[in-house]
Amino acid sequence: MHEFHLINKYFSKLTRNNKSSLNLNDDVFFNKSKRLVVSIDTYVEGIHFINFKKPDLVIKKIIRSSISDIICKGVKPIYYFISGSGNKKSFSPSNLKKISKSLKQEQNKYNIFLCGGDTVYSNKLSFTVTSIGFSQKIILRNNAKQNDDIYVTGNLGDSFAGLSILKKKIYTNNNLRKYFENKYYLPNLHLRLSNKLLTFANTSIDISDGLITDLEKLINKQKLSYKLNLNNVPISINLKKLLTQKKLDKISFISKGDDYQILFTANSSKSRIINKTAKSLGIKISKIGKICSNLQKSQIIDQKGKKIAVKIKGYSHSF
Amino acid sequence: MHEFHLINKYFSKLTRNNKSSLNLNDDVFFNKSKRLVVSIDTYVEGIHFINFKKPDLVIKKIIRSSISDIICKGVKPIYYFISGSGNKKSFSPSNLKKISKSLKQEQNKYNIFLCGGDTVYSNKLSFTVTSIGFSQKIILRNNAKQNDDIYVTGNLGDSFAGLSILKKKIYTNNNLRKYFENKYYLPNLHLRLSNKLLTFANTSIDISDGLITDLEKLINKQKLSYKLNLNNVPISINLKKLLTQKKLDKISFISKGDDYQILFTANSSKSRIINKTAKSLGIKISKIGKICSNLQKSQIIDQKGKKIAVKIKGYSHSF
Repeated sequence: MHEFHLINKYFSKLTRNNKSSLNLNDDVFFNKSKRLVVSIDTYVEGIHFINFKKPDLVIKKIIRSSISDIICKGVKPIYYFISGSGNKKSFSPSNLKKISKSLKQEQNKYNIFLCGGDTVYSNKLSFTVTSIGFSQKIILRNNAKQNDDIYVTGNLGDSFAGLSILKKKIYTNNNLRKYFENKYYLPNLHLRLSNKLLTFANTSIDISDGLITDLEKLINKQKLSYKLNLNNVPISINLKKLLTQKKLDKISFISKGDDYQILFTANSSKSRIINKTAKSLGIKISKIGKICSNLQKSQIIDQKGKKIAVKIKGYSHSF
Repeated sequence: MHEFHLINKYFSKLTRNNKSSLNLNDDVFFNKSKRLVVSIDTYVEGIHFINFKKPDLVIKKIIRSSISDIICKGVKPIYYFISGSGNKKSFSPSNLKKISKSLKQEQNKYNIFLCGGDTVYSNKLSFTVTSIGFSQKIILRNNAKQNDDIYVTGNLGDSFAGLSILKKKIYTNNNLRKYFENKYYLPNLHLRLSNKLLTFANTSIDISDGLITDLEKLINKQKLSYKLNLNNVPISINLKKLLTQKKLDKISFISKGDDYQILFTANSSKSRIINKTAKSLGIKISKIGKICSNLQKSQIIDQKGKKIAVKIKGYSHSF
């Protein structure tokens, strides 16, 4: 049973009379009167990250994944708490120094502040990060409108290419290897786009599980479908190169997660302001599809204009 | 190296320019302008709880330990988030049902609301709970004044007796066994005392590591000492019975943790209002010592009026 179903079956009822929880149907908690936005994520070694050989990179990735949940909702994160469970080797003085240095760098990059946490010894390494922001308004899930355009920031698939290389499932030259590993560990979050999103996005999510899975999550409670143009889904020149070299499918790469790009929908009248914003911030924002009525089935159109069946599910968070 | 030193050495510097973190020197985060109080705790199987054979009790204990951090600061908790990592057995439908039922009962008992969390699969069971409350004011650590009286709520040591019985280190009759196991799993939090504390306590902490350890934590940044009258440290009739039966030391039981009683100090002029409050709320509050200058060493006076050396350190959170 997936997390999604577990939550629905056993825990949603616990949030009755508590609107702020958004029925546990969003990645964040939002209390309008307190203007409080909270997100919590747990990362386990061997599931959410391969191992702890590069503590500096793992910590950066964990922090970015966590604050990404808040940024994609149109809110700037400000506080974070990190709770780590691990053995003495994971938390050796040398590793703690690296963890501390990485946190400091992330604090400077994203203007966030460490506020507390917990350190406990355990033979299994895991981290839980709580991120907090303050806002009067956030962009919710399941608020897409029929005929909305579907947009995504940046490029997709680079992170999965990085993971595949790290797991030695794909071999490539040193330059490409470095490029993709970097993309896997250090997703580039669009902090400056965040509050602009509030002005044009109807609904949004960050891509952590994969484009298709997250798009389905984004509209899961709505009687809507989507039409996605695979050709318009942005990938990097390097990924294009790798796919050609290795004869790999584009769709299998963009459907895996860990991209931490923002997927959102907006009324077609917002097209101009979105392009203008993208230009002024130097962020790539691509129109990749449309929200349709539920009278038709969701569909993906491939490069040759043909409908394709979606078999590939998102990133399952297991190695 | 203890958590305490780890934090000081590697993480305190990350909180510079961020007063709300209280320099990581308290159990909570407090942002005065946002009136926000946050506490985060991680609980690992085999370290913070023995096993998961009784999910209903473990979950209750975890929730209470977490909100206890906020309650002892004079603040009512209102929201909580729970993030669990565990295998399919730990999160079986039957266990999830029990977890959900326990959470519901705790919500009703303490008027708190589930707001979110995360469920991930891992071969090591652990939970991280984030608790949130709102207040203009909280009681800080390290704010004791010389000549303050030292107080503690309820009885100490019952929880450690329960743990010792569960670990089969002590054997006793069924009635006592049930009583102590109950005390171990279900600490009784003094929610109604919480906002009263703000009016008379100078400093406070909940006893999670043991009376002596937590008292030392309470004043660790201050140039003060304490004088504790062992005779006045409250224990239950049942614990008195057990100690006599088994010829065990009182000090070794009250110095272990997991009591979740509130330890606080107050000016001697507050003595009357404290007694009145205790009476009106039906809560036992005992005066157990005094805060002294740092010209003398901290001391514990035993039942016979003799000074005793403190060898017993607090609960180390390992079995």
